[in-house]
Amino acid sequence: MSNAPKIDQDRLWQDLMAMACLGATTQGGCDRLTLTDADAASRNLFRLWCEDAGLAVRVDGMGNMFARREGTEPDLPPVLMGSHLDTQSPGGKFDGPLGVLAALESARAIDRAGIVTRRAIEVVNWTNEEGARFAPGLMGSGVFGGAVPLDAAYAAQDREGRTFGAELARIRYRGEEPVGGRPLDSYIELHVEQGPELEAKGTAIAAVTHSNYLVYITFECLGANGHTQATHFQRQRNALLGAAKALVAIERIAAEHESRAAVSQLDVWPNNRVNVPHRATFTVMMVEPSREKMLGLRGAIMAALEEIGATAGLTFNILADATREPVIFPEEMVTLVEDVASELGHSVMRLSANTGHDALSLGPICPTALIFVPSRDGISHSEFEYTAPEQCAAGAEVLMHAVLRRANRR
Amino acid sequence: MSNAPKIDQDRLWQDLMAMACLGATTQGGCDRLTLTDADAASRNLFRLWCEDAGLAVRVDGMGNMFARREGTEPDLPPVLMGSHLDTQSPGGKFDGPLGVLAALESARAIDRAGIVTRRAIEVVNWTNEEGARFAPGLMGSGVFGGAVPLDAAYAAQDREGRTFGAELARIRYRGEEPVGGRPLDSYIELHVEQGPELEAKGTAIAAVTHSNYLVYITFECLGANGHTQATHFQRQRNALLGAAKALVAIERIAAEHESRAAVSQLDVWPNNRVNVPHRATFTVMMVEPSREKMLGLRGAIMAALEEIGATAGLTFNILADATREPVIFPEEMVTLVEDVASELGHSVMRLSANTGHDALSLGPICPTALIFVPSRDGISHSEFEYTAPEQCAAGAEVLMHAVLRRANRR
Repeated sequence: MSNAPKIDQDRLWQDLMAMACLGATTQGGCDRLTLTDADAASRNLFRLWCEDAGLAVRVDGMGNMFARREGTEPDLPPVLMGSHLDTQSPGGKFDGPLGVLAALESARAIDRAGIVTRRAIEVVNWTNEEGARFAPGLMGSGVFGGAVPLDAAYAAQDREGRTFGAELARIRYRGEEPVGGRPLDSYIELHVEQGPELEAKGTAIAAVTHSNYLVYITFECLGANGHTQATHFQRQRNALLGAAKALVAIERIAAEHESRAAVSQLDVWPNNRVNVPHRATFTVMMVEPSREKMLGLRGAIMAALEEIGATAGLTFNILADATREPVIFPEEMVTLVEDVASELGHSVMRLSANTGHDALSLGPICPTALIFVPSRDGISHSEFEYTAPEQCAAGAEVLMHAVLRRANRR
Repeated sequence: MSNAPKIDQDRLWQDLMAMACLGATTQGGCDRLTLTDADAASRNLFRLWCEDAGLAVRVDGMGNMFARREGTEPDLPPVLMGSHLDTQSPGGKFDGPLGVLAALESARAIDRAGIVTRRAIEVVNWTNEEGARFAPGLMGSGVFGGAVPLDAAYAAQDREGRTFGAELARIRYRGEEPVGGRPLDSYIELHVEQGPELEAKGTAIAAVTHSNYLVYITFECLGANGHTQATHFQRQRNALLGAAKALVAIERIAAEHESRAAVSQLDVWPNNRVNVPHRATFTVMMVEPSREKMLGLRGAIMAALEEIGATAGLTFNILADATREPVIFPEEMVTLVEDVASELGHSVMRLSANTGHDALSLGPICPTALIFVPSRDGISHSEFEYTAPEQCAAGAEVLMHAVLRRANRR
């Protein structure tokens, strides 16, 4: 005998706040870079909670964690729901954990209501969504979905030269399960919007239709060493100054193109007070819905760097150039989110995704949905990230009911 | 019975080239940051050569090394000559080692000629002249001269958080001698010019008259974290972009003021690809002969940063602000260098010093002279630093004779 399943808003909020104690920062955020001790702690707590909820936890060779609630037809592909527990450094309490803990609470609520499902449902915690320590992001889901070779992931290095594979083994989360290669009915992810649209429109839920072009280009600027005090600045071939000019030009060009480009990472060699830098590297990130505009933006940036280099006696080289093509979610999955949200009485709108999410890794291998709830002031990747308890619960409700429909469909 | 002392040009060159093997870089330079294993190796080799030359080596509590050739009146204050064996990373073969090894060869030449001196002469290798690993530079001579407290030097940290004191002990060069506090007759230092003036004028020797204002200001730019992909760039408070704008403004302002300012060091937090940086720090270095122009340059930079901050929602704070006041060398010491050079048949000119040298630390406590020889293309703090064998030997000759006059004067 089953009742209507109900998300326990207080329980979900307590779980979020308890998880946020692991790697907590002074200003209310979290610092749980992937494969750190804090990440390991969050995995252990998640495993404990899953086992308390009667779910069977398995870990794959990428450290992706799957907590399964069996269905009545165990041979049918399961419905997967989740997100990631790793954060930026510093990051907030919601980007990632909300999707995992809302999925866990959904599984509990389904259980409390005595509901049986045809298909199994699984709660997933993907490894290294953020990519802040080991690039690229969406790594665990990327290997699962087949876009990233397992060996390449293991070989990824952090800034101290430690490999992903060694760190995964160190925290004892290199599991036995093969990574991916198994059929899924579908994947549904709840995430905070990380943008201002829902809040601005006063809307509770977004059904994400597609992602935009995400482009990362890493440039190297080469100059020549010299003595800062003794080399007249007009003759200095200062690679840091060249990079600074590039950053200023990129901001101007993005504004002119009414598009988005930002630089958030820069390294300088030798980076001391008296040696003119011979090398600087920086990574430009662009988000753009239109392929044509993306190419225009790229071209303008390349031309600007060429000119800066020629004027200042510097050379700009491209070290890495990666474009994540848009992922278009199936109309049936977008409609599923819209229908469930409306039936639950939540306002709902369609949005595209400017940010990377594990759902983009799953999109190519199974029907995938991505659900957004509001982020206060559009802030994320910040200690000041905030989504209210009732907003989190609304998202969890939509997630749970969408998952139930997939799990029980004929 | 004594002969005319003669610098052995080949021996000096061989010593320079042998020393350059320690911490050698791929492009012909040196990487011997202070208190590294390579620095320890250079100290061991220097000690060996000094002992071979019959000099008595003592090490003080800062790791400064003194190799003494006794005089006939041991109670008279000695004449000190030398420079430093540490280098930039990367640095060249000449900045520092020339002054130490020319002093050592001078002592040998005096010995070969059977000359006795009234005053003792000492060859010195100062610790951490460069300041590339532990700021500030001129540290060993600074403590010796009384400008830097010993405790502050010991507490200085490198970028990995290791202290100067611990690293000095690790390489076993924390000696027993008290640091400074003993009378000196004079200090004479030979160094490469690290500028283009001597080469441009075809002159062999410079007698340095004074140093210019050297100003280091470390700024912090504060913004706010956010998601690079999700926060529209026009709303991002990107501290890295603020710092980039500051660097571009500083170059423009220095050109407008016909003065010198450069930024060679910049750090960013958290410095990853998806988190808008909340903090960036950078250090502005200025060299300026005139106090009035230096103050004008400072003021213009401060005003520009204020404006950048106000426009972009960023805050600029000053973390450190150090001005090295000009040191004026006594006319008698400048004339001594000019006279000796002329008598030896070398062309000579007067120059001011744009760069920091240990002589600036000694100037306030004893009559001090600083001698320059040419640097090819004015290049230094670079693997491509070069001063020819005969240029090095000419400088060593002037050094030796100047030291002899001081050592034997009545």
